[in-house]
Amino acid sequence: MNKEINDFHINNILKEMSDKDYQGYLLADFSNIKYISNYMPTSFAFCVLKENPVIYASKMDMEIANKTSTIEVKEFESFSEMIAELKGEIKNLAIEPSLEYSTYEKFSDDFKIASEIFINKQRAIKTSDEIAKIDKATEIAQKAFVDLDILSLRESKSFENTSAYELGGLMREYGGEGESFDTILVSGSATSLPHAVPKPKAIDDIILVDWGAKYDGYCSDNTRTMVYSEKQQEIFDIVKESHDNAIKAIKPGIKCCEIDKVARDIISEYGYGDKYIHSTGHSLGLDIHETPSFSTKDETIIEKGMVITVEPGIYLEGDFGVRLEDTVAIDNKARILGNLPAIIE
Amino acid sequence: MNKEINDFHINNILKEMSDKDYQGYLLADFSNIKYISNYMPTSFAFCVLKENPVIYASKMDMEIANKTSTIEVKEFESFSEMIAELKGEIKNLAIEPSLEYSTYEKFSDDFKIASEIFINKQRAIKTSDEIAKIDKATEIAQKAFVDLDILSLRESKSFENTSAYELGGLMREYGGEGESFDTILVSGSATSLPHAVPKPKAIDDIILVDWGAKYDGYCSDNTRTMVYSEKQQEIFDIVKESHDNAIKAIKPGIKCCEIDKVARDIISEYGYGDKYIHSTGHSLGLDIHETPSFSTKDETIIEKGMVITVEPGIYLEGDFGVRLEDTVAIDNKARILGNLPAIIE
Repeated sequence: MNKEINDFHINNILKEMSDKDYQGYLLADFSNIKYISNYMPTSFAFCVLKENPVIYASKMDMEIANKTSTIEVKEFESFSEMIAELKGEIKNLAIEPSLEYSTYEKFSDDFKIASEIFINKQRAIKTSDEIAKIDKATEIAQKAFVDLDILSLRESKSFENTSAYELGGLMREYGGEGESFDTILVSGSATSLPHAVPKPKAIDDIILVDWGAKYDGYCSDNTRTMVYSEKQQEIFDIVKESHDNAIKAIKPGIKCCEIDKVARDIISEYGYGDKYIHSTGHSLGLDIHETPSFSTKDETIIEKGMVITVEPGIYLEGDFGVRLEDTVAIDNKARILGNLPAIIE
Repeated sequence: MNKEINDFHINNILKEMSDKDYQGYLLADFSNIKYISNYMPTSFAFCVLKENPVIYASKMDMEIANKTSTIEVKEFESFSEMIAELKGEIKNLAIEPSLEYSTYEKFSDDFKIASEIFINKQRAIKTSDEIAKIDKATEIAQKAFVDLDILSLRESKSFENTSAYELGGLMREYGGEGESFDTILVSGSATSLPHAVPKPKAIDDIILVDWGAKYDGYCSDNTRTMVYSEKQQEIFDIVKESHDNAIKAIKPGIKCCEIDKVARDIISEYGYGDKYIHSTGHSLGLDIHETPSFSTKDETIIEKGMVITVEPGIYLEGDFGVRLEDTVAIDNKARILGNLPAIIE
């Protein structure tokens, strides 16, 4: 099953490579290697996609690589040995854009190199199997959030950081492998920082929780904000209108930036355009941040199979911030993953 | 205080840059940026070290960057604007080796670029303030390990993954910010994988725990193995002999690879050389893996102020693995951080 899906992914990429006359594609990103081989490196590893793809794994990873990889694994000895082996077959070598410069340098004398997004493009379109895993991760994360009962934790003056940790424990209890990113569970004025860190302090009024689970390697992502004052409620309503309309606007064939515009225009109309300080959403899958994004500049055409977050927010420095985030799977329209209400009571 | 230390680091690097005729040094690694500015990015950021250093932060990070950075912060608008601003002052641009190729590409038309390890070299020599933080992280991690009481968890048939999570909870309770890496708490044959993942299964005979805490941004790292059979004890004794002798051999002025040789030679003498499948140690600090390493190839001269792990191991595939790891701070000789015995009873 794994091998079938991996081979499907590999064949798609090989076709694109052949169209552009590349004989090899060098990958070092762990998620990229997992995506096409099922082996998730725990130490450095290099994969070369080619007619007969091969992974050069570190000695300490050979046992796990041999057990899990659906493609050939060799032990990495040195760059010079690797280059000597590849030089016969490869003249034009594609590399992933995230490859470290120092790795690129090792290969730049012996190959004609250019960076290509073949694999990111492929990873953007999820198979039904991948979407099922993201669905499951979402289900686990949302069940954990409901059972955490954040409102009662505020009443009992629980700390932000211990509550965030408790949420992680529940996600594991419900079958998750762990967090898909460090949980943001913050309150009071810290909510105006989009990526705030939970502190050892009692949960205050206005609570923002941004969290996700990992299930079988795949991520979920949600944010809920619990508001307490009239002003907070007013801001929440604007963010919700932005969130709802952006999701309604999603369909295959239009550009990602058009969705960002829908979300941003609503917030701007209410006069908070300069307080909306990030993009409207990012794709997710094996990684929590993948491409394409619902950003002002991303002109990628939306396609069926994409899984992207929608997360408008308004951030009032020194006062508070509100964000509402759901992840959607796109078919003819956007399907919101999970069933957690936007308003937590 | 922070500003003083950051300025000290910056001035050292500026001197090296000037010696090699660089007018700028481009950094994107979060820990590198934190190291010289005290600001830890939560989204992308670029720092250019130069006469008047500057950080280009993402819009969503402007509040936290302005609050924490000891050097000037600007909002990142685009690479073209950034390049236009820098072009007047900089002709030769150094970049960190880990910079993504796609970022390098943005700058390669307008600057003469080469990768340099200035900052990694500087980060290898810890100030007393940094060592105090690593000491504290170690103290927290070891106290949590003792109080976890892994031996009784085995008796009560606790799961590996929930026990690992409990250890993380204790490290937070004792003042740690969290794990310095995903805790490895595994048992039985999984111990033969150096980077095994804890599973929802009862803790079995032979238990390996590799864990660390973070304190004020700084990492700790330790491994203990609890053995049960005669064969396991025999392997443990070899690993301990290797560990103890390697630590005794550490002193300023000799090469890092000489320490790896001391550790590896002992294991080889007992006939397990091919079962020692990783390096003897790595530096740590803001990151869990820093340079230099006690590896077969690292010819870096050991200096006072380095903080490096010593962690020989023997891995018998399908059977079990043993690793013993301590972190040492190097002055005239190696001082083992913390006071946790090698043998846990």
